[in-house]
Amino acid sequence: MLLRSLLLLLAIVAAAPRCVADDGYRLWLKYDLVADATQRAQFRAVAQYIAASGNDVVLKTAAAELQRGLQGLLGQAVPVVAAAPVGTQRGVVLTINPTANVFGSSTSRDAYHIAPQGRHLAVTGRSGAGVLYGVFALLRQLQTGQAIANLTLTSSPRIQYRLLNHWDNPNGTVERGYAGASIWKWNELPQRLDPRYTDYARANASIGLNGVAINNVNASARYLTPEYLEKVKALAGVFRPYGIRVYLSVFWAAPKVIGGLKTADPLDPQVQQWWAAKTEEIYRVIPDFGGFLVKANSEGEPGPQDYGRNHAEGANMLAAALGAHDGIVMWRAFVYKAGSDDRFKQAYEEFKPLDGKFAPKVLVQVKNGPIDFQAREPFHPLFGAMPRTPLVLEVQLTQEYLGMATHLVYLAPLFKECLNADTQTQGPGSTVARVVDGSLDQHRLSGIAGVANIGADRNWTGHPLGQANWYAFGRLAWDHTLSSAAIATEWTKMTLTREPRAVASIVDLMDRSRDIYVRYTTPLGLHHIMGQNIHYGPEPWLAQAGRPDWTAVYYHKADSAGLGFNRTATGSNALALYSAGVQQEWGDPQTCPLNYLLWFHHVGWRQPLPTGRSLWHELVTRYYTGADSVTWMQQRWASVQPAVDAALHADVAARLEIQRREALWWRDACVLYFQTYSKQPIPAPFAPPTRTLAEVKNLVDLYQLK
Amino acid sequence: MLLRSLLLLLAIVAAAPRCVADDGYRLWLKYDLVADATQRAQFRAVAQYIAASGNDVVLKTAAAELQRGLQGLLGQAVPVVAAAPVGTQRGVVLTINPTANVFGSSTSRDAYHIAPQGRHLAVTGRSGAGVLYGVFALLRQLQTGQAIANLTLTSSPRIQYRLLNHWDNPNGTVERGYAGASIWKWNELPQRLDPRYTDYARANASIGLNGVAINNVNASARYLTPEYLEKVKALAGVFRPYGIRVYLSVFWAAPKVIGGLKTADPLDPQVQQWWAAKTEEIYRVIPDFGGFLVKANSEGEPGPQDYGRNHAEGANMLAAALGAHDGIVMWRAFVYKAGSDDRFKQAYEEFKPLDGKFAPKVLVQVKNGPIDFQAREPFHPLFGAMPRTPLVLEVQLTQEYLGMATHLVYLAPLFKECLNADTQTQGPGSTVARVVDGSLDQHRLSGIAGVANIGADRNWTGHPLGQANWYAFGRLAWDHTLSSAAIATEWTKMTLTREPRAVASIVDLMDRSRDIYVRYTTPLGLHHIMGQNIHYGPEPWLAQAGRPDWTAVYYHKADSAGLGFNRTATGSNALALYSAGVQQEWGDPQTCPLNYLLWFHHVGWRQPLPTGRSLWHELVTRYYTGADSVTWMQQRWASVQPAVDAALHADVAARLEIQRREALWWRDACVLYFQTYSKQPIPAPFAPPTRTLAEVKNLVDLYQLK
Repeated sequence: MLLRSLLLLLAIVAAAPRCVADDGYRLWLKYDLVADATQRAQFRAVAQYIAASGNDVVLKTAAAELQRGLQGLLGQAVPVVAAAPVGTQRGVVLTINPTANVFGSSTSRDAYHIAPQGRHLAVTGRSGAGVLYGVFALLRQLQTGQAIANLTLTSSPRIQYRLLNHWDNPNGTVERGYAGASIWKWNELPQRLDPRYTDYARANASIGLNGVAINNVNASARYLTPEYLEKVKALAGVFRPYGIRVYLSVFWAAPKVIGGLKTADPLDPQVQQWWAAKTEEIYRVIPDFGGFLVKANSEGEPGPQDYGRNHAEGANMLAAALGAHDGIVMWRAFVYKAGSDDRFKQAYEEFKPLDGKFAPKVLVQVKNGPIDFQAREPFHPLFGAMPRTPLVLEVQLTQEYLGMATHLVYLAPLFKECLNADTQTQGPGSTVARVVDGSLDQHRLSGIAGVANIGADRNWTGHPLGQANWYAFGRLAWDHTLSSAAIATEWTKMTLTREPRAVASIVDLMDRSRDIYVRYTTPLGLHHIMGQNIHYGPEPWLAQAGRPDWTAVYYHKADSAGLGFNRTATGSNALALYSAGVQQEWGDPQTCPLNYLLWFHHVGWRQPLPTGRSLWHELVTRYYTGADSVTWMQQRWASVQPAVDAALHADVAARLEIQRREALWWRDACVLYFQTYSKQPIPAPFAPPTRTLAEVKNLVDLYQLK
Repeated sequence: MLLRSLLLLLAIVAAAPRCVADDGYRLWLKYDLVADATQRAQFRAVAQYIAASGNDVVLKTAAAELQRGLQGLLGQAVPVVAAAPVGTQRGVVLTINPTANVFGSSTSRDAYHIAPQGRHLAVTGRSGAGVLYGVFALLRQLQTGQAIANLTLTSSPRIQYRLLNHWDNPNGTVERGYAGASIWKWNELPQRLDPRYTDYARANASIGLNGVAINNVNASARYLTPEYLEKVKALAGVFRPYGIRVYLSVFWAAPKVIGGLKTADPLDPQVQQWWAAKTEEIYRVIPDFGGFLVKANSEGEPGPQDYGRNHAEGANMLAAALGAHDGIVMWRAFVYKAGSDDRFKQAYEEFKPLDGKFAPKVLVQVKNGPIDFQAREPFHPLFGAMPRTPLVLEVQLTQEYLGMATHLVYLAPLFKECLNADTQTQGPGSTVARVVDGSLDQHRLSGIAGVANIGADRNWTGHPLGQANWYAFGRLAWDHTLSSAAIATEWTKMTLTREPRAVASIVDLMDRSRDIYVRYTTPLGLHHIMGQNIHYGPEPWLAQAGRPDWTAVYYHKADSAGLGFNRTATGSNALALYSAGVQQEWGDPQTCPLNYLLWFHHVGWRQPLPTGRSLWHELVTRYYTGADSVTWMQQRWASVQPAVDAALHADVAARLEIQRREALWWRDACVLYFQTYSKQPIPAPFAPPTRTLAEVKNLVDLYQLK
């Protein structure tokens, strides 16, 4: 008996393919054997089979994923059967039931309900996707070491369209990508389907994402050609079993470039016909196509304004082209022109007047802040200002302005800060989250988009902890009330370790990391003072660029008197774009949160702040303590070494050392540069930088060399 | 006893880390357990330990690599000991012995000798690197299933400097790279060393490569800054234990860009001082630095001609800067200017007069052909024409003009065709190989360079069989007398399968693949008729470009009379650059090999060829049979399915389907386009294309869209 068991075990173990170390490829879906034998036995008792019937393709995916997960976690084969067998065996029953009265008040097709049902554990969804999300929730319970025997869990997403936006180019590069080349291999499609596409879809589905805009918003027209639609169709075919729909970023001038028309005027009947016919063609090829994402009349991209039309006229034309198809238009509000007095105001000025003018299928996609994914921005003034228009919140997972793939910056606190911000447009509690999820204005449609941080690097995100930002985005897209610490805890347990003290240390480290980053780069509301074009390292002295609003001095406005952008009524008056309550709080430098101070006020160098220090003293303090905090992060990370995979630990440790070095670089660059205006010494107890401003500039310059 | 054995086996098997499938990462260094138990037992008997003593770092690498290989292949632990133990155990003894009389006539420090020595198998090298190469040769014996007990093998490289050239950019892209992003992570260096760097070095050492130029020849000056030299130092530190030296491509204007000088004139004393000081700085940081690779006054790059100096004056200045250091200058001859009558002649015209003018440390690096890595070129006329200058042969492993990463094209036949070409400059037998290995002109220095096809894709080269081109380059750099089939056989056995029929089929497929590619793209000596800029797909109609010699019509010169570039005395007379014997053969269209016909002759459409067909008939025949041959390749590949890893087989099968489609694309584009000049029908038995030229052009155009 022992011999037979051993032989069996040997066969099982030997059959498992081999490889080197944990290289991060499996993300949070590791499904390693549950280490605690008691717990494993408990899990095994309730998961002896999986019952799932019917032909729903996503339900089949759910059953297969649950099987895969359980086999890994429990170390036993778990058969998938059509129906729960008679007898005493306990299993998990997966059911689609659109009319069941178990999903609470939500009407979402993605809702699921998990509950004991006789001797079984039932996972019920309103759709196959609902079951799939329920299955991943169930696996998450196991992965994080929670009991499942009496699990009762009802959940549904607060936001309907939960998308990743890939800024991936046809040539395989990724705009603002720091994790290698694009994962899409256009020259191989449609004939070859990289197995990675499936693992990508699995990861997205596991966190509730249901849409992917696969190409850069600075779009090529080629995606709309028959040749490329066959490629897109192949990807859509991989994603469909995971409940994920494909969206395309469109090049506005496509009717001219590939359609042979003389114009791309949205009011031109030929143009309208071209888009209608093209849309029909797309749906013939991809019946569940999600819709269009559009960047128009922004940063050199063509758009309806080229023909004297506005954004609504452009978006509505595309919405009309969608006709009766179940698709949407996501029209980006990220627009700014050269020569304006304050870039902060432009999206608002162009879009606010259009509120109520957009067709029902159009959502306007708004970045979290008014400038461009800075480490900290006040919420975008369009939130709350367009009650008749559903607004998509666009956040950035790729760390364009947040240290790329070498700085550990956990972004959930940034996302939460925006979601929790109170626009006060309909009284207190008019949070950005309620604008975005549609509850504030009772919108039928709601959406959220994350600019992906994913590339072909083996571990997907370059920085191993960048995976947590992908994860956190999906979890918040599903439920924006989750806390950033709770999400970090889930992710850490699934991905890094379940040792309780290590988990607590890592979560603490993650949850503080974004504030630390702000401190050593752009404290007190500084913004857009980073290296030109590459957005790497500091360059507060940047005064000449293609446009004034691409410089740094445009934003920090340092002079002998003080520092900061006066956006009050005596300045650009961008503050007037916000509701009265917000204006009142932020308009007075005494009540304005220090985090936003220099966003709205030009403050004297010697001006005392509520901290008891002068602006200069506080600024220097934050740069120095921010940089010092990276050393604290290093120590924290060192302390968890025994609990984390050795190669992964070393990887993160090395990146933290880079981060420490670059934090000092930021600190020295900024205090030395701003000192040329403040004319004050570095206050005690801080030691002045040991290098000169010229030396730091030199270091910055070389990273800009051809 | 059985129980104990089983428990032990279980422990061994369970300890092996797990992963998914064979994803190609391990290249040809798989070291999987030898399947044949008898053979395994024989191997085990002679490899019970590894003896290696001393502190030579490369010798230590050799011992570790042998240990790793033997443990994998034999499934038993093989200890490394300082000296062979007394007793009867048989083992492998690794020794450095610079003065041993066992290496034959070679004076190379890289030479090795393997032979039985008492009960041991001795691997002796003139240096640690020699031992390392010997160890890999020994492992190759095992991997290819050959006996080792009485193995006697003496080998030394015919070429001294065996380099990969990486066209990798600082931003992580790779110029003409088709396997993802650069493997170098500049923002992570020097703090983080990707484990991949080590695996890269292992692979190179295993095929005898001993140098790496890590950055694009279109070079950034930043690599010469102290900041970047620290990064380069870190890479050099990874490579050193594998006997690999680092070289840098240099930006000629660096003294201006990072040195603050007003000029980069090589005769300016300040410039000379700057380079001398910079070189000293490099050697302080990297004591075994290999030297400089230079692309100057070519395709917009700056160079000595900007100051009225010639290439020799530029190269010699750098050679002087190297001083007594053991480094070299590889100065590229790939130069051409706008407005010349025939680009074919330019490198010759600029460099031939400089023969004898280069300093002893300078090698001139010449591409295999006179244009630019076309699928087939006549050998470069500089080979044999510069007897007083050591010439480095530069070949391209990345398939810039050969179907990128979707076409299966095994390149050893291309390399061999050039190496075996007889320049006849010193009578018959004056082969390019003998020019390059220095034997023809008794040069002290010799070199060969392959432009790498390596990227961060998991399998390194995109196309799984692209690995064979990396492998073949290394093997031919070591010994250019090896046959392409022999190399393909080695590689296939190590990488894909050892099933004899499958090996034979794969080797046959590989060895014919390049001729097939030529047939369906550029038969009979056509060249440079590919898609503009991206070099993807056909574009023979390209008539407008930034320069005439970037078009296609410049090269094929199709007209109503015929096709081809008249390079005889009645034309550009490029033929005159070759020796008399070559001129005689190639100058007469009756004796010119058909493979080079349209390189040198404008041939009438109805002109009969030695095949019995007219030019037009032959041209169409080759396009059609070439495209048909891809179907043959598919069938051949399908036949080996049972013998090859399933995922890998499917990958290659999918790429072959892309190749079939694109072969038809090439065929249709070219026959339809040239038909507009020949005015003749597609001859029987070939069926005319079912699409129009306009349709094919449309397909080409969309791949050029922004």
